[in-house]
Amino acid sequence: MGQVDLNADLGESFGVYRLGNDPEMLRIVTTANVACGFHAGDPLVMFRTMEMARENGVAVGAHPSLMDLWGFGRRMIVGEDPADIEKLLIYQIGAAQAVAAAAGHRITHVKTHGVLGTMANEDAELATAIARAIRTVDRDLFYTVMPLTQSEAAAERLGLRLVREVYADRTYQENGNLTPRKIPGAVIHDPAQAAERAVRMVLEGAIFTTEGTRLPVPVDTICVHGDTPGAVEAATIIRDRLTENGIRLRPFAAAD
Amino acid sequence: MGQVDLNADLGESFGVYRLGNDPEMLRIVTTANVACGFHAGDPLVMFRTMEMARENGVAVGAHPSLMDLWGFGRRMIVGEDPADIEKLLIYQIGAAQAVAAAAGHRITHVKTHGVLGTMANEDAELATAIARAIRTVDRDLFYTVMPLTQSEAAAERLGLRLVREVYADRTYQENGNLTPRKIPGAVIHDPAQAAERAVRMVLEGAIFTTEGTRLPVPVDTICVHGDTPGAVEAATIIRDRLTENGIRLRPFAAAD
Amino acid sequence: MGQVDLNADLGESFGVYRLGNDPEMLRIVTTANVACGFHAGDPLVMFRTMEMARENGVAVGAHPSLMDLWGFGRRMIVGEDPADIEKLLIYQIGAAQAVAAAAGHRITHVKTHGVLGTMANEDAELATAIARAIRTVDRDLFYTVMPLTQSEAAAERLGLRLVREVYADRTYQENGNLTPRKIPGAVIHDPAQAAERAVRMVLEGAIFTTEGTRLPVPVDTICVHGDTPGAVEAATIIRDRLTENGIRLRPFAAAD
Amino acid sequence: MGQVDLNADLGESFGVYRLGNDPEMLRIVTTANVACGFHAGDPLVMFRTMEMARENGVAVGAHPSLMDLWGFGRRMIVGEDPADIEKLLIYQIGAAQAVAAAAGHRITHVKTHGVLGTMANEDAELATAIARAIRTVDRDLFYTVMPLTQSEAAAERLGLRLVREVYADRTYQENGNLTPRKIPGAVIHDPAQAAERAVRMVLEGAIFTTEGTRLPVPVDTICVHGDTPGAVEAATIIRDRLTENGIRLRPFAAAD
Repeated sequence: MGQVDLNADLGESFGVYRLGNDPEMLRIVTTANVACGFHAGDPLVMFRTMEMARENGVAVGAHPSLMDLWGFGRRMIVGEDPADIEKLLIYQIGAAQAVAAAAGHRITHVKTHGVLGTMANEDAELATAIARAIRTVDRDLFYTVMPLTQSEAAAERLGLRLVREVYADRTYQENGNLTPRKIPGAVIHDPAQAAERAVRMVLEGAIFTTEGTRLPVPVDTICVHGDTPGAVEAATIIRDRLTENGIRLRPFAAAD
Repeated sequence: MGQVDLNADLGESFGVYRLGNDPEMLRIVTTANVACGFHAGDPLVMFRTMEMARENGVAVGAHPSLMDLWGFGRRMIVGEDPADIEKLLIYQIGAAQAVAAAAGHRITHVKTHGVLGTMANEDAELATAIARAIRTVDRDLFYTVMPLTQSEAAAERLGLRLVREVYADRTYQENGNLTPRKIPGAVIHDPAQAAERAVRMVLEGAIFTTEGTRLPVPVDTICVHGDTPGAVEAATIIRDRLTENGIRLRPFAAAD
Repeated sequence: MGQVDLNADLGESFGVYRLGNDPEMLRIVTTANVACGFHAGDPLVMFRTMEMARENGVAVGAHPSLMDLWGFGRRMIVGEDPADIEKLLIYQIGAAQAVAAAAGHRITHVKTHGVLGTMANEDAELATAIARAIRTVDRDLFYTVMPLTQSEAAAERLGLRLVREVYADRTYQENGNLTPRKIPGAVIHDPAQAAERAVRMVLEGAIFTTEGTRLPVPVDTICVHGDTPGAVEAATIIRDRLTENGIRLRPFAAAD
Repeated sequence: MGQVDLNADLGESFGVYRLGNDPEMLRIVTTANVACGFHAGDPLVMFRTMEMARENGVAVGAHPSLMDLWGFGRRMIVGEDPADIEKLLIYQIGAAQAVAAAAGHRITHVKTHGVLGTMANEDAELATAIARAIRTVDRDLFYTVMPLTQSEAAAERLGLRLVREVYADRTYQENGNLTPRKIPGAVIHDPAQAAERAVRMVLEGAIFTTEGTRLPVPVDTICVHGDTPGAVEAATIIRDRLTENGIRLRPFAAAD
């Protein structure tokens, strides 16, 4: 049948602090987005994560962020010059490339972290700055985006290779945006239900809004969470349900 | 006659903080070692410094450090695993490569900052870890070292391209080490005198100890300070005295 | 005639980085707002600044901020829980109290830094959290506020001792807010003109809007900048003009 | 029979990162040493930890450190001026006092963290700086020290109130120092055995070296670990064994 990539944000430990269960998650996912030290991660964590990913046949990408360790890249920092943010990303992507090479691996893509991605989805100028950062470092890198957003539009405008990502455990609004977490029903807490949704999105090549609208989009990768309680179990269920439905799991960049 | 490179540690500002007079220094030196965000510098400062360096025809290199912003990489942090420090450097060098490319430039070399270099000069294992980090990221990068140290030995052992550096304003002990700053006479405060010493070292291809011993070493580059009061004036005097003596100033990697 | 306090934000150095000319400014102002390590400052800088302040007969206060060293507390970080920000302030004020005591001094007040103050001026909940933090640590501390703002209202509601502050070099809008910096005429660049405005505000007990409206407010203290080029000269001019007009300069808490 | 205090280092989370099981540990120990933001902890974590401690009738103290978040205060940073470290501690203790007050609690003592304590145990000047910091902030605060060290000597010299601490799960050398972790037998991994040792030390008022020597020392508090796997179980066993032997557990400052 079809095929899809399964990705998670990993390498988010820092110093003595451990976040998520990377060794387990790396046996489940096909792609890992690795934190680059600005919201989480440090060079040792990055190396360890990328080395483990290589050993597990998992593709890796840079998962850069605004500069905000204490806030984990989730604090809404507004008004920064997109041209400045562009440099933050160039730095992080370059660092990730070098660490990946040292770990005998290579990064295939970039996925922005936290509030940076959320803001870019609605801000064409910021999205363009992100796309430009990727292109500047290596125009062969994929850019992982939410479909139907300014991020996707910017990537297309700049001719970047694109990976469209959907969330198994989040619901969608009519415009294709995620339902904000504050709204009831935004998050699917039952892994079995999330898995069903993932299967359906892949098989139909579409996301489905809370009002039932079908929005056709390429579904290149499914995001699962790596740092919540029950993350390993939930990811396992999603993975199993996908393969049971004849969907092959492989890194989106596998044929690259 | 001969030729030599003139280098300074630049790009050591951070956020709103300004350190040194980079625009002026970049009109004087031929090579800049650019801080990489661990003891100083941030992606915006790195970009700005590297862009200015390119505009001035100044070569740039990575100037990585231990992780110590508050201590400016000068706090003596002992006992860290050299294999860990290796990853810190790989990260920083990779980041510097990417930012340099974004600024239309490229890094030619790596020079360690502060206490990291000092410790490596006497610690073969640490020096080897540094050399390995450079080789891992790009084996064509030069490694700037003090001659007659473990840093130089490690670079030779690993087959790295070498740049031997001398200090115009520091005196040398019998073993080729710098006289520790605590000892009177360690630092030459008169720029004219420092300039004379620089000229002599280049013309004779040797350093001269406080006891008068001549230690023949290749003199590839002369380090001048960029962040002290009077730095611009002192560097100008050294530069002028070198050229007056028929010594051509050019980046060590110019013929590369 | 009248009297007024002259304040500046000082102690904003960090590690090796120097910002502003604290020794000079401390000979001019009567009150210093000392950074507390979150946007600038560190314990050594705080101690040095407070000790110098004491030697110059200058009153000191805590100048706390959001947690944002790289952005110097100027990045607009929105959406943080006011109850969380309250704890950040309690921590910083407590630290400032202890360092002041160690320096043989004591803090008389709290003035929030950067974007935190700006946001609180229009956000009653945030302003209340700030006022509560001050009251929790020491209900005898003054709270330095801009008149006609939510900050002032919160301080009054909680029964805090209040210091109303005006800016010599900024113009005011009809509602008493500062003209945003983006608007032409927001900043008075001529120190002589700024000094005239300061004198008039003190003598008339009012601020004057760009449209000429007179808004009567208590003028307890005038803020001058400590970290811009020409800061010392501008502050000197303002100070001299005030005293020439018979206005006595003394810490607002002098009679305390 | 006798009585003793049981303490653990808690509040070592940071931002999104969780370390240790504070809610469980606070049901077991009688005193908590709370990280102050320099090696771990942040104002929110401090507040939460101190509030929980109050609710559980657990005494709290400041647990200050060198400035080293990434290294968790364990990196051996040598050569810093003790007079500078003194200011770092004053800042942290003051912050802890204020946060404790906000949480309806108060700090009873100071215990240094990680490498700072280890270094002070053998460095009279550093130990004196620490003791001076405590005395400067509040001379009624206790200073938790290892007996037979420079830390203890400094506290006595400055007339500080003293708490002597022993480790249930560490062995002692002839001079009263802990056996370094690198040496086999340094750590007692069996909680039952650690508990027996704790009981014996309390009942006999002495520590026992690996060679069998009995070193009489006041045993005011026993340190148990809060952040290792099995920490809760181990602490529970130690607590139970102490009470089974008729030893009353209460904060050392309870009678204060």
